[in-house]
Amino acid sequence: MRLGMVGLGRMGANLVRRLMRDGHRCVVYDLDTEAVKELEKEGATAASSLHDLVDKLEPPRNLWLMLPAGVVQPTLDQLAALLAPDDTVVDGGNSYYRDDITRAGRLASSGIHYVDCGTSGGVWGLERGYCLMIGGEEEPVARLDPVFRSIAPGLGDAAPTPGRTRTDGTSPEGYLHCGPSGAGHFVKMVHNGVEYGMMAAIAEGLGIIKHADAGLRSRAVDAETAPLREPEAYRYEIDVAEVAEVWRRGSVVGSWLVDLVADALARSPELEAYTGRVSDSGEGRWTVLAAVDESVPAPVISNALIQRYESRGLGQFTDKVLSAMRGEFGGHAEKAG
Amino acid sequence: MRLGMVGLGRMGANLVRRLMRDGHRCVVYDLDTEAVKELEKEGATAASSLHDLVDKLEPPRNLWLMLPAGVVQPTLDQLAALLAPDDTVVDGGNSYYRDDITRAGRLASSGIHYVDCGTSGGVWGLERGYCLMIGGEEEPVARLDPVFRSIAPGLGDAAPTPGRTRTDGTSPEGYLHCGPSGAGHFVKMVHNGVEYGMMAAIAEGLGIIKHADAGLRSRAVDAETAPLREPEAYRYEIDVAEVAEVWRRGSVVGSWLVDLVADALARSPELEAYTGRVSDSGEGRWTVLAAVDESVPAPVISNALIQRYESRGLGQFTDKVLSAMRGEFGGHAEKAG
Amino acid sequence: MRLGMVGLGRMGANLVRRLMRDGHRCVVYDLDTEAVKELEKEGATAASSLHDLVDKLEPPRNLWLMLPAGVVQPTLDQLAALLAPDDTVVDGGNSYYRDDITRAGRLASSGIHYVDCGTSGGVWGLERGYCLMIGGEEEPVARLDPVFRSIAPGLGDAAPTPGRTRTDGTSPEGYLHCGPSGAGHFVKMVHNGVEYGMMAAIAEGLGIIKHADAGLRSRAVDAETAPLREPEAYRYEIDVAEVAEVWRRGSVVGSWLVDLVADALARSPELEAYTGRVSDSGEGRWTVLAAVDESVPAPVISNALIQRYESRGLGQFTDKVLSAMRGEFGGHAEKAG
Amino acid sequence: MRLGMVGLGRMGANLVRRLMRDGHRCVVYDLDTEAVKELEKEGATAASSLHDLVDKLEPPRNLWLMLPAGVVQPTLDQLAALLAPDDTVVDGGNSYYRDDITRAGRLASSGIHYVDCGTSGGVWGLERGYCLMIGGEEEPVARLDPVFRSIAPGLGDAAPTPGRTRTDGTSPEGYLHCGPSGAGHFVKMVHNGVEYGMMAAIAEGLGIIKHADAGLRSRAVDAETAPLREPEAYRYEIDVAEVAEVWRRGSVVGSWLVDLVADALARSPELEAYTGRVSDSGEGRWTVLAAVDESVPAPVISNALIQRYESRGLGQFTDKVLSAMRGEFGGHAEKAG
Repeated sequence: MRLGMVGLGRMGANLVRRLMRDGHRCVVYDLDTEAVKELEKEGATAASSLHDLVDKLEPPRNLWLMLPAGVVQPTLDQLAALLAPDDTVVDGGNSYYRDDITRAGRLASSGIHYVDCGTSGGVWGLERGYCLMIGGEEEPVARLDPVFRSIAPGLGDAAPTPGRTRTDGTSPEGYLHCGPSGAGHFVKMVHNGVEYGMMAAIAEGLGIIKHADAGLRSRAVDAETAPLREPEAYRYEIDVAEVAEVWRRGSVVGSWLVDLVADALARSPELEAYTGRVSDSGEGRWTVLAAVDESVPAPVISNALIQRYESRGLGQFTDKVLSAMRGEFGGHAEKAG
Repeated sequence: MRLGMVGLGRMGANLVRRLMRDGHRCVVYDLDTEAVKELEKEGATAASSLHDLVDKLEPPRNLWLMLPAGVVQPTLDQLAALLAPDDTVVDGGNSYYRDDITRAGRLASSGIHYVDCGTSGGVWGLERGYCLMIGGEEEPVARLDPVFRSIAPGLGDAAPTPGRTRTDGTSPEGYLHCGPSGAGHFVKMVHNGVEYGMMAAIAEGLGIIKHADAGLRSRAVDAETAPLREPEAYRYEIDVAEVAEVWRRGSVVGSWLVDLVADALARSPELEAYTGRVSDSGEGRWTVLAAVDESVPAPVISNALIQRYESRGLGQFTDKVLSAMRGEFGGHAEKAG
Repeated sequence: MRLGMVGLGRMGANLVRRLMRDGHRCVVYDLDTEAVKELEKEGATAASSLHDLVDKLEPPRNLWLMLPAGVVQPTLDQLAALLAPDDTVVDGGNSYYRDDITRAGRLASSGIHYVDCGTSGGVWGLERGYCLMIGGEEEPVARLDPVFRSIAPGLGDAAPTPGRTRTDGTSPEGYLHCGPSGAGHFVKMVHNGVEYGMMAAIAEGLGIIKHADAGLRSRAVDAETAPLREPEAYRYEIDVAEVAEVWRRGSVVGSWLVDLVADALARSPELEAYTGRVSDSGEGRWTVLAAVDESVPAPVISNALIQRYESRGLGQFTDKVLSAMRGEFGGHAEKAG
Repeated sequence: MRLGMVGLGRMGANLVRRLMRDGHRCVVYDLDTEAVKELEKEGATAASSLHDLVDKLEPPRNLWLMLPAGVVQPTLDQLAALLAPDDTVVDGGNSYYRDDITRAGRLASSGIHYVDCGTSGGVWGLERGYCLMIGGEEEPVARLDPVFRSIAPGLGDAAPTPGRTRTDGTSPEGYLHCGPSGAGHFVKMVHNGVEYGMMAAIAEGLGIIKHADAGLRSRAVDAETAPLREPEAYRYEIDVAEVAEVWRRGSVVGSWLVDLVADALARSPELEAYTGRVSDSGEGRWTVLAAVDESVPAPVISNALIQRYESRGLGQFTDKVLSAMRGEFGGHAEKAG
């Protein structure tokens, strides 16, 4: 089918490529005219403006936005004036699901459909396909089924789930209509929260293995340093990169994230290119807020978020207060780094 | 090659089957004579006692123990009297790595080699192969290479790690000699700690999605119950089983654990067969002890362990103290369940 | 000075008593006419309605609301129609500070001042005084200074802070103007978050001491139960009530909360009256939301909140998913309680 | 009574002073002869060696060791040869309770009594008295009662616990015989764990208040930085030092630790003298190990320990792994500090 793509960054461009491979015709637009030209060469129809893009689609139109979260609202504001009733806009980026509810309501008053779609797959999605978590009304979601199907991974090599007896539903092909407006981004948000926790588990485990040599190193002997009681139990120098590699096959922790860690460590066992300041870009903290609101305990996801804050030194004032208290009651001086 | 297997529970029996498929000859022993007979039918040589098993192997002998942790030491004590210098015993179970160090030292005084081998793969290992993490001296580990190779998954369908340039090493085939005595069980212990964290991340995420309907349910209105400020943001009834299924393909959280959760939820979306009392069987807590000793922060693995304790109601006295304090300072009565 | 008190529950009534002791004249109102009569007997002026209460005060009026959070807004809506420019309303309850900002803005448009005041002290405040954390405009807060001073504890027995050299400010007397609208309830909210963390630390510590007898009890011996490796290190039967009592004097953890725990345990060492379902009433979760928004790591306060959720069994679905995963990969059955 | 004090650091010297004030006669020894002379001037009997100290006491002798944890064992080894049956040695330092069990057993074989005594009070103990948690046999503990009583704070200004009806026991005077060997240091260890949690709660709360100005500061706008959705809710510049001061009186969080924080912040509101690298000196981590062994959830104490590890940058490798994973799947570059 015909689709307009707004936003041709890495993900948007690759979505267009997957769609064209499957025979869909794409009209593409980006502020960066080079990105537009590049895809035009590959077979897409170039648009020179949002107005032009809308013109080059026939009603009822289908548009997909693949934009940084901060640019979605102004783009929707422009589109609202250009689109006609029964047109559909998909937001495929990482918007907060609460914004979806508001946006869908506003566009509905003009008869325009709004679909939120969480898109997972990162830089590898062109090849592997993207896992899609979709929210919105039944009808426009159904209408866009061929688009979702082309973007999603499909059954692929993965074995069918043995216990799954129902034969309807698209989830085995890697895309799912999760519920009304916001449900897609809600599930994607939590997906990213899960990702934080899984990443942290793997990273902590490798960290513990890395430091299995603690008994070989000397520790300061003073009242400010807890001694290692049994240094003989920590005398291993283990090749962390090889551990990640061996975990890729047959183990319970086998996962795409372990595959990626194995790759990163194979390239650079000490990860010298990194300082360890771990960003967070919204979904993790939103997941924690949701857990708190729902009164659901989520210790692992919450602490994975906190760990990222700690990695960026954001607890420094708190830590200074701790050191100051120790100084007050025990006369403990802080140890130099 | 020829191998003696002691312990024919699910894992031991399946190891024997994988070995025989690859042409190894196995002498098998278990207190449960039915288990011995069953494998005899499949081609193994039955032994009627440890003594008999040792007799039926030729020096230098290779034995593999696949026993509950509590039975390993008495079995080793018996074997020490039966074995000869240069024989090798592999402990393939879940022993604590600190015990390995002691055991290897004792057996070494009789010239017997001791190899510790962490074995991951669970009930699926017969088909998928087992990921092996091995500790001990170079020579006996090298000697047993054909055995490890047959038990391990091999390269299989998994793509090679793109960044891996070295061509030596067995890790891509799913087994790794990690270091001296105890190193295998150390890495397996941490592997299970990682497993705790990954499992918790997935389970919490699905819990948050399950409770995305919080705004549809009524909450008590009283001073003891925090109100849900924005119920309109929690009005989703999402099919958790389908979410697990869709995450299996193309997503960043794709993993064997997600495959298994999808299967469990496909069979029973409400998991009625479970009460939610989550056991822990040692490795998780040992991982936390190691992190504490090494002075390495491991918030996610630590809190995953704590979550399991909480699930079994082990914090009840602590919680009573909390309720008692609230009663004292605020006159708060506890709310009934 | 003259003050109208709306809401004569335990805290409101005791505030009136402290104010009258210091010579302030109070007009009091509550839906519960018995509560009004009781305070009338003690010297207050009774009001039969909000309208009557407003009539009995002279402009510029000062009112104090001591109401459940859910009743504040409707009461303010009524009062808005009854009050005159330059009148002041203090909300002394546990409102969310974000509501204060909205409410102050609305009332300001009618020239009415709104002051938010977090009030700590619980059932003991009549005797000890209440710690007050105040937000709002300078002028009305200054005007109400005599009221705040009477309610607050004053210098009392507590020694002056040695390092404090400034001689201005009211904080040593137990009340503080923290900033503009919402600042009082913001600081009170965080105060309660701190309270959660301190309570949890004390309760966990006493729980660990309570269970120092773990080595005297038999533990199941099976693959689902981690063994206690060194039972000889856990053979203490320690009187937890006496420990709380001894910590009251001279120790670093000495605190009002330890005083209260000692009292509760003196009355009932096993706390049989409690089941351990610990409520949370808003401030703790709001504190966690603020920490997440501010990007500040708050692991202890966050985990204290999560612990309360766990105590109420709110993680049950999550825990079921964990048990189901263990069943899938390891064939582990759940252990009965 | 007569007591020999070995170790005249800040705490040992102050113990001697409190004892002499109450009429006890002290023989004192330290490697630092200046410390010995100083106390001799104040009335103590100087000893020039352990041998001399033992000579200057009459059997049955009472000795108190106030030494760094690492020096206790060699000192005990020397004393074992010098002491006679029925002599008693008190270890008043921060030894690990498991060492007490071993040490008491060894000395018992020579008829020497060993008493472990956890001593809390820090640099303020001379004035306030020290909270004592005691382990060992009944008889020698009873014999030393006058010593414990003089060191402990006594009833002091603190009100009696209202619910306490029993009139026996020494806990209201600030010292307690907790149980057999090791019980004193066990309770002291947990006391310090509680201290970690309480300190963290207070420090985190003040950190959240400090950062209540987050909405006034500009945040980077890019895909790596989560935006602050409601900056208008974080526009407070609150005087953290004054908040600590106001919490000292009448509030639920009132405690000696809040007193100390108020003092530290009064001296230096930004705590410039500290970098925020928070040491831990053993008891906190031992408390976590005990909780893990006992299968008791202790999320707050555990996370307070982890927070200290984070403050010292000990999670850097873990954090690098996290950044590397983000780089692999999302092409995310790390942000510069």
